[in-house]
Amino acid sequence: MKANAPIGIFDSGIGGLTVLKAVIRRMPEEDVIYFGDTAHVPYGSKSGATVTRYSLEVARFLAARGVKALVVACNTSSALALDAVARAIDVPVLGVILPGANAAAAATRNGHVGIIGTEATIASGAYAAALRARRPGVRVESLACPLFVPLVEEGWWGHPATLLAARHYLAGLRRTDIDTLILGCTHYPLLKGVVRRVMGPSVRLIDSADAVARETESLLENLELRRRQGRGRQKFFVSDDPKRFSRLARRLLGLRSGTAELHAFD
Amino acid sequence: MKANAPIGIFDSGIGGLTVLKAVIRRMPEEDVIYFGDTAHVPYGSKSGATVTRYSLEVARFLAARGVKALVVACNTSSALALDAVARAIDVPVLGVILPGANAAAAATRNGHVGIIGTEATIASGAYAAALRARRPGVRVESLACPLFVPLVEEGWWGHPATLLAARHYLAGLRRTDIDTLILGCTHYPLLKGVVRRVMGPSVRLIDSADAVARETESLLENLELRRRQGRGRQKFFVSDDPKRFSRLARRLLGLRSGTAELHAFD
Repeated sequence: MKANAPIGIFDSGIGGLTVLKAVIRRMPEEDVIYFGDTAHVPYGSKSGATVTRYSLEVARFLAARGVKALVVACNTSSALALDAVARAIDVPVLGVILPGANAAAAATRNGHVGIIGTEATIASGAYAAALRARRPGVRVESLACPLFVPLVEEGWWGHPATLLAARHYLAGLRRTDIDTLILGCTHYPLLKGVVRRVMGPSVRLIDSADAVARETESLLENLELRRRQGRGRQKFFVSDDPKRFSRLARRLLGLRSGTAELHAFD
Repeated sequence: MKANAPIGIFDSGIGGLTVLKAVIRRMPEEDVIYFGDTAHVPYGSKSGATVTRYSLEVARFLAARGVKALVVACNTSSALALDAVARAIDVPVLGVILPGANAAAAATRNGHVGIIGTEATIASGAYAAALRARRPGVRVESLACPLFVPLVEEGWWGHPATLLAARHYLAGLRRTDIDTLILGCTHYPLLKGVVRRVMGPSVRLIDSADAVARETESLLENLELRRRQGRGRQKFFVSDDPKRFSRLARRLLGLRSGTAELHAFD
């Protein structure tokens, strides 16, 4: 493996671009290949077997492109398929669950933490397990918010309907005394404003993108695989309709991915 | 082909169950095999090539199970993949676009018709073309409502957030003088109450499920393939997580599909 090889990042769609942005911010010299599995999006309402099958296809594709590390920038895939992915390819693999859980464990003062995510992420119990491993005795409240991803993809970050949905989902959490809330889906950072408005200023929101970028950097340092100079480029692949992806990437994250290339799986 | 063979019905998920219910109501003697392509749901935000690939997999599976006719009970697939499906299998194939367009063309008095559907269905222009073919000079307003499917799948048919979303999407349509509105997605009949509330009582809502069931019956009559006696049974297949499908089918449509069987595509 060479230090000049790119970092691979993948998500079911555009959510992982929040992680991509954090990685670019922290390591602007690194090349990145991003894969959005838009033919199979969303992962969050699908089963472990299906999410694992899709994740392996993407991971093998990126491994074949010579990535020096693979960031699974999708909470659902990290929760359900990370071990399978790590076993299947000969590249160091990082998920987003552990960095997020570690950041929350460090942030909470009263040891009472909330997690919101997709149905599959929440059902997996992966965040709760990671939190308990890091901070025994922590109390955890887990909650699925299935409409948050479609609301983000529609660009309705501050729409009154989104606020109503957030009030509906978070009503139970508001009645607890959690002081920290993990945004356990890479789409959710785009709803930070709405979630903060509903939960109030005293609850700390944990967005794992920065934590993941930090962990990726430290992994590459340890493996002596950091690229030291130059200016990194990004390459985008999707499994369906590059135009739609580029439009969303630009609208949601101000990212130009005009070069997104189609790679369909059979 | 034998009259005792089952009718095949498929959709990307649970939406087509509204068509299944209409078919059972009209032809209670017929056996039906339903396929929900839940590993690939939703179709409505995906490209023609991808929707066609998925549709062909399902159609071939149902043809191999010996169905005597295939109802493509998904507007997106009907709009984008119907010809490909009809060419690929040796079974009569019906879509939902034509029956819906015909019903709307017959219903409108002022010749001004609205259509709501998924992004892919609306972008295809299939409804507008079918309406114009049936009733030259008709004026057509087309509108995508991407959040309606996730809102239905969440069971929020009468939720205040759904009403806000409907008001948002339909604001432009309300300012027109359409007298007929096609619910161009098999999920949308479940939002009839909300859509009626926003559009007012003077706009006639066209739900193609009944029109499709009628057309299926007449096709089978013409081919002398109607089953004349007995009581039909339903068999359900899904490409992901039968439990989730059964739960939704029960909640959304009061249908018992406890026997849903998993058939995953590679």
